[in-house]
Amino acid sequence: MIKDIMLISELGELALIEKIRGYFSIGDSGVLIAIGDDAAVFSADKKNIVTTSDLMSEGVHFDYTYTTFYQVGFRLVISNVSDIYAMGAVPSYLFLNMALTGKRSEEEFDDFLKGVREACEHYNAKVLGGDLSLSIKGDFYSATLIGFADRVKTRSGAKPGHNIFITGNTGDSAAGLAYLKYVKKRIPMEKNMEYTSREIDGTILDTVRRHLIPCACNPETFIDKIKAMIDISDGLLLDLYRICAESRAGALIYRDNIPVSDGVRAIASMLEMDYMDFVLSGGEDYELIITSDSDHLDDCILIGKIIKDGFFFVDSDGIREKFVPKGYTHF
Amino acid sequence: MIKDIMLISELGELALIEKIRGYFSIGDSGVLIAIGDDAAVFSADKKNIVTTSDLMSEGVHFDYTYTTFYQVGFRLVISNVSDIYAMGAVPSYLFLNMALTGKRSEEEFDDFLKGVREACEHYNAKVLGGDLSLSIKGDFYSATLIGFADRVKTRSGAKPGHNIFITGNTGDSAAGLAYLKYVKKRIPMEKNMEYTSREIDGTILDTVRRHLIPCACNPETFIDKIKAMIDISDGLLLDLYRICAESRAGALIYRDNIPVSDGVRAIASMLEMDYMDFVLSGGEDYELIITSDSDHLDDCILIGKIIKDGFFFVDSDGIREKFVPKGYTHF
Repeated sequence: MIKDIMLISELGELALIEKIRGYFSIGDSGVLIAIGDDAAVFSADKKNIVTTSDLMSEGVHFDYTYTTFYQVGFRLVISNVSDIYAMGAVPSYLFLNMALTGKRSEEEFDDFLKGVREACEHYNAKVLGGDLSLSIKGDFYSATLIGFADRVKTRSGAKPGHNIFITGNTGDSAAGLAYLKYVKKRIPMEKNMEYTSREIDGTILDTVRRHLIPCACNPETFIDKIKAMIDISDGLLLDLYRICAESRAGALIYRDNIPVSDGVRAIASMLEMDYMDFVLSGGEDYELIITSDSDHLDDCILIGKIIKDGFFFVDSDGIREKFVPKGYTHF
Repeated sequence: MIKDIMLISELGELALIEKIRGYFSIGDSGVLIAIGDDAAVFSADKKNIVTTSDLMSEGVHFDYTYTTFYQVGFRLVISNVSDIYAMGAVPSYLFLNMALTGKRSEEEFDDFLKGVREACEHYNAKVLGGDLSLSIKGDFYSATLIGFADRVKTRSGAKPGHNIFITGNTGDSAAGLAYLKYVKKRIPMEKNMEYTSREIDGTILDTVRRHLIPCACNPETFIDKIKAMIDISDGLLLDLYRICAESRAGALIYRDNIPVSDGVRAIASMLEMDYMDFVLSGGEDYELIITSDSDHLDDCILIGKIIKDGFFFVDSDGIREKFVPKGYTHF
């Protein structure tokens, strides 16, 4: 008898994560937040210790064809810093794991470490440890970042009536990546480096930079007004859905309020794609989605409102249209 | 002009780790222990928080030809628990990263999680988070484990005159692995499972178990007598060398005192190898090496003495012989 085998690629990422959650229930252990938010939280004496861990594997999260080793290292740190900020915490200590094919050169190894170091210095994180190993079949990096928070901000604090804000443009990173996949070459920009090119338009370069040297967004100036928060790592709609799912609520999105950069429009036009696909579902922008009962947050853009149930776009003429949250998933 | 390119495989693991240490000096940051011990330590209020991170990559740390998914998950946890115990700490919170090829079945995924869960339950660690992703070219796992310690035990506390103890046999895991590579098949033993076989001798099975379902050694009963400590992950001599290097000291080893299991002898004889190679340089036993000014530690074996300088074996007839510490390195 042949047994039916279900592959994890058929199950899908969300089902797999639910499965992991089921395996590791934490019971009554004094842990404040376990699996299911941007990071986990436990307390030591009076401090909230916030921890997140992210991995990057070659061919999935990065491709050396169009990413330098510096940029891979830089991006690894940012994805973790962004998770820590999204909890209302401040990053402190980083642990770095690397499994590398033996064919890597010393120069490539140095470049990767420089990228890690410059990102860590920028966000005040110290590298305290990790692990290094050979890999047979491709490079793999992971990092764990520990931070501290006075008051933790979760995904589950959204309530009907809250306004929904974002801290900046979305879709830039995904559009930048699409451009890089199209030109199939590295653009060796680094932090603080003035990079100009005769071949590439400046607007497009700015957008590509959002992918290669991303920023993590620190919400400290309006932290007291935040009720729920998540960082955009898998797309505006999917990450907004995660806030709503954890808060048992729905959302209206004022579609015309969503900011779109010139670079996203330019790249979408060049590649004959719909720019709103980048804006709504592109990952790795590391902007924050915030819900608040305030009508205004400095430097943030109001893009919607939390409602009891359902997901709708609202146009400026008031017409509602249902939407299905989708974004980047790994399986 | 062709530029000379130095590959990381030519530099070697120790040089690469020194390079990493150079990149990430922590300065005056309030961190108690950074790169260079079994785990890093920082304090939050009055608590010492001890963190370690380990990775496992397919084809290097495990091979599914002769390792079940359960066993891979179990071993991933143990390697981290052992590092936490080696700091005199108690394990608490685990973060799990997985990059898996899409061809993994749900059953394999479940088996891996069961292995992680049973090891975590045994050592009282809670899984709080992590990351899951597709991998193009092979499976990678990493885990970060956070623990707490009242008084941290480091590698650097050894002084000339200290006795050197180990907590149990060494070489068993490496011999078990050599046996598995020879028979090229899985032995589906699990924690608490009575596994017997008509084909495999019981002594050999016990030794193979040390590789597939290892134990981490908790030093709590003699913690007050410990001056320096490390767990044996890369071999008795190499890990003893690490204590000596961090403590700026040397060591005498009473070679005849080193315990050798019947299983190691049996496997070495079967494979026509020298059993002392397993015992002195085999990795992943997760026994502890301890230095102490006591003459006796419960359940530990006295195997040598810390001296000012140099590395020597001493036989029962008092003859000294220099040795070069070697063990498992990844490059």
